[in-house]
Amino acid sequence: MKKLTGVSANDGIAIATVYKLVDSDLSFKKRTIKNPEKEIDRFEDALRSSGKELISIKKRVLSLLGDKAAQVFQAHIVMMRDPEFVNPIINQIKNNHINAEYALKKVSDRSVRYFDMMVNNHYMQERKNDIVDISKRIMSHLLGKKLPDLSLINKPVVVVTHDLTPSDTAQLNTKYVKGIVADQGGRTSHSAIMARILAMPAIVNTQKITNLVSNNDQIIVDGDSGIVIVNPTHKQVSIYQKKLKLQNQKLNSLNNLKQRKTVTKDKKRVMLSANIGTHNDATTALKNGAEGIGLYRTEFLYMNSDRLPTEDEQFQSYKTVLQRMKNKPVIIRTLDIGGDKQLPYMQMPKEDNPFLGYRAIRFSLNKEDIFRTQLRALLRASNYGDLSIIFPMVSTLGEFRAAKSIYNEERQKMINQNQPVGKIKIGIMVEVPSAAILADQFAKEVDLMSIGTNDLIQYTMAADRGNNYVANLYQPYHPAVLRLIKHVIDACHHEHKPARMCGEMASDPIAMPILLGMGLDEFSMSSSSILKIRSLMKKLDTNKMAKLATKVVHSANTSEDVIEMVKSMVSFQY
Amino acid sequence: MKKLTGVSANDGIAIATVYKLVDSDLSFKKRTIKNPEKEIDRFEDALRSSGKELISIKKRVLSLLGDKAAQVFQAHIVMMRDPEFVNPIINQIKNNHINAEYALKKVSDRSVRYFDMMVNNHYMQERKNDIVDISKRIMSHLLGKKLPDLSLINKPVVVVTHDLTPSDTAQLNTKYVKGIVADQGGRTSHSAIMARILAMPAIVNTQKITNLVSNNDQIIVDGDSGIVIVNPTHKQVSIYQKKLKLQNQKLNSLNNLKQRKTVTKDKKRVMLSANIGTHNDATTALKNGAEGIGLYRTEFLYMNSDRLPTEDEQFQSYKTVLQRMKNKPVIIRTLDIGGDKQLPYMQMPKEDNPFLGYRAIRFSLNKEDIFRTQLRALLRASNYGDLSIIFPMVSTLGEFRAAKSIYNEERQKMINQNQPVGKIKIGIMVEVPSAAILADQFAKEVDLMSIGTNDLIQYTMAADRGNNYVANLYQPYHPAVLRLIKHVIDACHHEHKPARMCGEMASDPIAMPILLGMGLDEFSMSSSSILKIRSLMKKLDTNKMAKLATKVVHSANTSEDVIEMVKSMVSFQY
Repeated sequence: MKKLTGVSANDGIAIATVYKLVDSDLSFKKRTIKNPEKEIDRFEDALRSSGKELISIKKRVLSLLGDKAAQVFQAHIVMMRDPEFVNPIINQIKNNHINAEYALKKVSDRSVRYFDMMVNNHYMQERKNDIVDISKRIMSHLLGKKLPDLSLINKPVVVVTHDLTPSDTAQLNTKYVKGIVADQGGRTSHSAIMARILAMPAIVNTQKITNLVSNNDQIIVDGDSGIVIVNPTHKQVSIYQKKLKLQNQKLNSLNNLKQRKTVTKDKKRVMLSANIGTHNDATTALKNGAEGIGLYRTEFLYMNSDRLPTEDEQFQSYKTVLQRMKNKPVIIRTLDIGGDKQLPYMQMPKEDNPFLGYRAIRFSLNKEDIFRTQLRALLRASNYGDLSIIFPMVSTLGEFRAAKSIYNEERQKMINQNQPVGKIKIGIMVEVPSAAILADQFAKEVDLMSIGTNDLIQYTMAADRGNNYVANLYQPYHPAVLRLIKHVIDACHHEHKPARMCGEMASDPIAMPILLGMGLDEFSMSSSSILKIRSLMKKLDTNKMAKLATKVVHSANTSEDVIEMVKSMVSFQY
Repeated sequence: MKKLTGVSANDGIAIATVYKLVDSDLSFKKRTIKNPEKEIDRFEDALRSSGKELISIKKRVLSLLGDKAAQVFQAHIVMMRDPEFVNPIINQIKNNHINAEYALKKVSDRSVRYFDMMVNNHYMQERKNDIVDISKRIMSHLLGKKLPDLSLINKPVVVVTHDLTPSDTAQLNTKYVKGIVADQGGRTSHSAIMARILAMPAIVNTQKITNLVSNNDQIIVDGDSGIVIVNPTHKQVSIYQKKLKLQNQKLNSLNNLKQRKTVTKDKKRVMLSANIGTHNDATTALKNGAEGIGLYRTEFLYMNSDRLPTEDEQFQSYKTVLQRMKNKPVIIRTLDIGGDKQLPYMQMPKEDNPFLGYRAIRFSLNKEDIFRTQLRALLRASNYGDLSIIFPMVSTLGEFRAAKSIYNEERQKMINQNQPVGKIKIGIMVEVPSAAILADQFAKEVDLMSIGTNDLIQYTMAADRGNNYVANLYQPYHPAVLRLIKHVIDACHHEHKPARMCGEMASDPIAMPILLGMGLDEFSMSSSSILKIRSLMKKLDTNKMAKLATKVVHSANTSEDVIEMVKSMVSFQY
């Protein structure tokens, strides 16, 4: 029996045998090359086939796991085309007459060393892992070797590895893989995110698990406390089997909530919706008890292709979601490109601060043709369900009015052509501080507002949510953020409109009681969170939460104050 | 007589003879090089001497024109060291065995073509101009030729040129150069900014002025209406001489306000202070009638050197400002590095969105040694005048408390060592939305708050102030921005503390009446704006402006609404 601890990347219990993931032998010799041009061709062939492989992995991941998981591979595809990565390799081959394998290794090692210098910066560490993953893939194509294929696993196992690459994680078959344990990684690493999407227990950063196990050892993964037990005693197995049973019971009781409405302890109705990234996600949303779609991010339609999607392709996708949701309300957000999301086939300007730049509705209002195509597709789809449209990143009423008037023009054109159009509500995402501050004015003009917390927090705190140097300042519970949210909710209610939120805060167990107390009407979140939040809401009294919300808004100084106030007034366990 | 129009880059009238600035002949032949290493050395020599030249220009500009003008050359120095600029040139020489001149031209032409593709993007156009300017300088050193030296001009002239580089502008002697006319450029180009700093009339973008004039032609520059007249008629000369006389009278009457206090029409006292970048600027501030220093940006002490400034160097600079201001209040801001301001000798992380990243107080709290050195220098200087310290970019009360406690530690150490320390007030810049929203809580803990509008606007609107793609969204008059400012002013007054502003809005003639109506107590601005604003304030009634402010905050929907409300209630001409 050996017991060791690591960092829990996802909770839950798993008991199974070890599958030790060993890297393929990607060794090679340094060679001098007579014809560098030919060698460069060979390198570019490997790039192309790696690219094709990534596209097919991305598609599979997208349909199985949704857009958040697929974004990792989208990033790899973009990185692999980045001249800053490719050109130095080509120059190495050209200038030093060395083989592509050696040039690739030299350049990727240099990047890794560079990233390693950035101590304690998780963001840089992730970039490093991406480089390692991409380089491995290209190397395997140069050497004509297959990387290990985890999709071939056909019995219950726990995967034990040095460091799980996103590519590895994406191939895991959840039917057989019960858990993950790794020597390296952190809570925010790609692999950890994947583990949470796959909903399997995972422990990372154990430092030495690969040295301690062999294939077919029995292993217990305790994601709740970050413990791994190799070859457990009978007693340990029986204790953990009980825990596993309890875990399954809990899951079952959550499943019983699927067809139920969401009500608080004092019988107030609240609506829980799903955020989705593809039309396939609508099915998952329904399976998880979603009462509507609070946010369909349409970017993936645009990113998952090598050209702009046609009006008809978009229409089909929107229609599918509306049909599957059977008259449950569906809110579709128009294209939110720019910032950290790029279209590979579209030249976007290089900006110093893309998050404060040309993105979302700013892009749509400038590229009217693209915007009109999307609006027409939405207008056509409106005949198949209960559709609302929201514009992302609106900063001024002028922008909303401009977007709405383009919408009205397209609508009128269709009516003139005797094409049927449904009743559509038109609104905005509230994610720029100016829109939140002016919510009372917006509420008079828009049909609906949905608070997007991820961006609202980063602008309010002036802290890039992807930048680990300021991670401590990206504070969802900061009283300033909560005051803005309160102001938006009050503004909606003043105009007798429901107040909605589709940011990650909506499913955060610390924030949720406050939001409930503020009177938020619709909480939209990842499908996987819906049942858990529904069960928590049953335990909350809205009047008590209203008192909590008032206290937070008036007297909290800091995020720590807020957390303390919530914990002192909310009884359920965190 | 020829008359043509262009874009006014600065107002005012000039009548003088033409000085046509012709480019030096920087032509050369393409040569094949046998020893590329030696050629690379030659290129690097030229880089080094260009660098030295730039450093001496920057120093001269800094002392003559202040930090805003010097920043242009700081940018050139950084660009000249940028591997993305230098390495392609070296590679050209190395790989193609060509002479440095040809390699330089090839690479800089390529950059220029790239920037030219970015149609309508002023920011990119400026970058292009920087590249052209830097390349010219390096080329002149490679060819051993002198660039034209504008500092040799010794009679009153108007400089006429194709496109004024920042280097040209910096050499202008304001004693003799009365105005600038250029074929190219725009209102926001470096040269236009320089013209405004030099306070000389300038018209750019005339397309063809250089084709129409010869040296010693008589020329009238009418910066008020964007008109240039070459070889004017007697009648035109006499009309413009009258205008010039009127202009000088106005200047004189402004000068009479120098020793006066600032009072509104209804005799309310307001304080007008100066924003400065170096201790020399304090003298200019006093000359322009400043009643204090509202903001001493200390970055230049750090940027204008190849290493960190010592405690003693800083102490001398702070002491100089305090002594020159003779007990007038001086507010010094601690180091605001990061974002768009880099220290060449300090490795800063490369960030995706530096404006939302590791900068200002975030940097100081992480680099405590650098912060403590600055605080000790400030503590020592406090014995020489009325000193307040403000921390930049504070987002949370936690940050303020951390910074203040470090300050208290250093203060206590000095007291324990029997070193004298004056009475210092400690406060924050309010430039992050979270601090503005939570101003009521901050006001209880800090001694003073100064609103920094440049950043506050860009975060509130989520629009990078340097990004031309979103320039239309960087809206100083947006009602959301004005509501935040009102909230901060009210919070200060609730705690019986004066409300201050040191952003560009404080001297904006549209914003100023609203701010006065909100009760802002101290307006801090560029020295050159003080007398103009003092004279405008004499015409405003605070009670009437209070009504204006209330109207703006409660019922304005958009920036356009705000401008209209101001214009309808304020009588002075814009």
